[in-house]
Amino acid sequence: MNKIPPLNKEMGRKVKDYIDTLTKPRGSLGKLEDLAITLAEMTKSPYPTVTPPGVIIFAADHGVAEEGVSAYPKEVTKQMVMNFVRGGAAINVFSRQISAIFSIVDIGVDGDVLQPEVRQRKVRNGTENFLYARAMTREEAKKAVQIGMEEGERLIQKGVKCFIIGEMGIGNTTSSSALLYAITSKPLSDIVGYGTGISEDQKKQKEKVIKRAIELHKPNREDGYDLLSKIGGFEIAGMVGAMLKAAEHQIPILLDGYICTVAACVAKIINPNVCHYMIATHCSVEYGHKIALQFIEKEPLLDLKLRLGEGSGAAVAFPLIVSATLMVNEMTTFSEAGVSSEREETK
Amino acid sequence: MNKIPPLNKEMGRKVKDYIDTLTKPRGSLGKLEDLAITLAEMTKSPYPTVTPPGVIIFAADHGVAEEGVSAYPKEVTKQMVMNFVRGGAAINVFSRQISAIFSIVDIGVDGDVLQPEVRQRKVRNGTENFLYARAMTREEAKKAVQIGMEEGERLIQKGVKCFIIGEMGIGNTTSSSALLYAITSKPLSDIVGYGTGISEDQKKQKEKVIKRAIELHKPNREDGYDLLSKIGGFEIAGMVGAMLKAAEHQIPILLDGYICTVAACVAKIINPNVCHYMIATHCSVEYGHKIALQFIEKEPLLDLKLRLGEGSGAAVAFPLIVSATLMVNEMTTFSEAGVSSEREETK
Repeated sequence: MNKIPPLNKEMGRKVKDYIDTLTKPRGSLGKLEDLAITLAEMTKSPYPTVTPPGVIIFAADHGVAEEGVSAYPKEVTKQMVMNFVRGGAAINVFSRQISAIFSIVDIGVDGDVLQPEVRQRKVRNGTENFLYARAMTREEAKKAVQIGMEEGERLIQKGVKCFIIGEMGIGNTTSSSALLYAITSKPLSDIVGYGTGISEDQKKQKEKVIKRAIELHKPNREDGYDLLSKIGGFEIAGMVGAMLKAAEHQIPILLDGYICTVAACVAKIINPNVCHYMIATHCSVEYGHKIALQFIEKEPLLDLKLRLGEGSGAAVAFPLIVSATLMVNEMTTFSEAGVSSEREETK
Repeated sequence: MNKIPPLNKEMGRKVKDYIDTLTKPRGSLGKLEDLAITLAEMTKSPYPTVTPPGVIIFAADHGVAEEGVSAYPKEVTKQMVMNFVRGGAAINVFSRQISAIFSIVDIGVDGDVLQPEVRQRKVRNGTENFLYARAMTREEAKKAVQIGMEEGERLIQKGVKCFIIGEMGIGNTTSSSALLYAITSKPLSDIVGYGTGISEDQKKQKEKVIKRAIELHKPNREDGYDLLSKIGGFEIAGMVGAMLKAAEHQIPILLDGYICTVAACVAKIINPNVCHYMIATHCSVEYGHKIALQFIEKEPLLDLKLRLGEGSGAAVAFPLIVSATLMVNEMTTFSEAGVSSEREETK
């Protein structure tokens, strides 16, 4: 893996000074100003651009789904991949809205979706049920991360200037919660949520499954590949790889909800610098999301009570990121516009 | 004035049921689902559309600006109108981003901006200083509201499907705070904020000016025209008129920040039904905004720490409203997509 460069703080300072010359009261565009400064630090450009965005969805199945931890049957993963191909899912709709370059990667679906729109990068037909065995081998975890990097690279070659990394995988809030529990040791009751909409009984079952899996596998919280191989998922590993690749190229990563942010936590364990290139777009309803955001030290931009995944929340937030870049690119300064600036006594 | 129709709750229920058939866990698109339902109730259409949006900016001056209540000199109103004409202000940038039909109305600027892009609808060269005299006559207040209606109607004729109503007027947070104080009687310290960025001393001065003006004029909080004429502004009256017109035509109104929301409060006093057609897009940093939102009983969609005005926050939020409509218009249902829905036991 190549090195992830640090943020260019000097460029951030320059852009901050420049923003203060634009025709508006200082600081009056709040978080949009912060975003513009952050994007400048990431991209090393005073006039950052984030278009076109790339949406990349990793899909895979989870052995643990057979423990009744989801509101939906396992077949839904494959069916939803087909829905992505036909363009009828939420992420399709929002990707079209933002003119994204769209990519679906089968990295471990149990069953084939042999459509030209689907990248055939299957490591295996779903993970093992981690209640009884490790989800995948360490080699498979490394392979899945590598695939994520390659698929990220492919989108970068197509010209994407911003990454939205989504997922589909029935059972993956269980894998994500197991990962977050292993990483942070926070109480399971603060971590495990209702996923796609499970019952109280299923939620208790989910907590029990996670507790037993962690006791069985004792994953090493300082080793991202150990975590992924024992209790992870192929799509989560793919997301980690795509994040590492985006950061290596200094391309902003818009984090979506819970699963995406847990993948960001694993990516941080592998290389802490990856977090420099992440923007948390929203706060999910899923309990553990706040804990995952704390681990990567990010504040979410929006709180729209979303809990869908697929990258949908990040895609919905994307126009705000564009607004931040357009502010810097297109607004005039007080002196250009011949507008009187603040009275001296107020400075 | 024509009647403002009630919301079509039946259409809202139909759309809610339909949203529950789309390929996503129920309720998982959170506030976007609520928005889609509200838009259906407003527009009486199961597949509402909000494009193209119309941005209409009312600009006027305030006599009270001479009391040193703003960080900027009065000339800035006129200079900013010229900036709007040249396309360099924040609202220009965000209006282009959302392909809005854009309109600037001089309803009371002190000095002329005789450009073809500016609608020449001046009532007078700014209000009187309401610390000493009523801001305008009752007839002028009615005339300004009428102009707002006509300018709203003009945009409706041009085909706008959603309103963003902005303002420019140095001193208008003082007028807005006076209005909100008169309307709600909440403590001035909870209402008066730092506006464009004034000092502590200026803030105290602003509170003093407002307190004295209310003692002098004793506006009738149940009479919108009395409020506007005694302590209002021409641009605020114009916004009120545009809101009433939009509601009459069942066109959604995206509220921006503090001044816009205070105009909404005045519009509510004139006709409470106008609130049915309002969506609060964000929560401003300006103190009183929360109080104004409470008065019209709206929850803001975003909290981006904005305090610019011009309609800028509403324009930035507009793509989220579009996302809500596209969800209903473009997503496929479980049965269309052949995706298994929730397991029976979880329902």
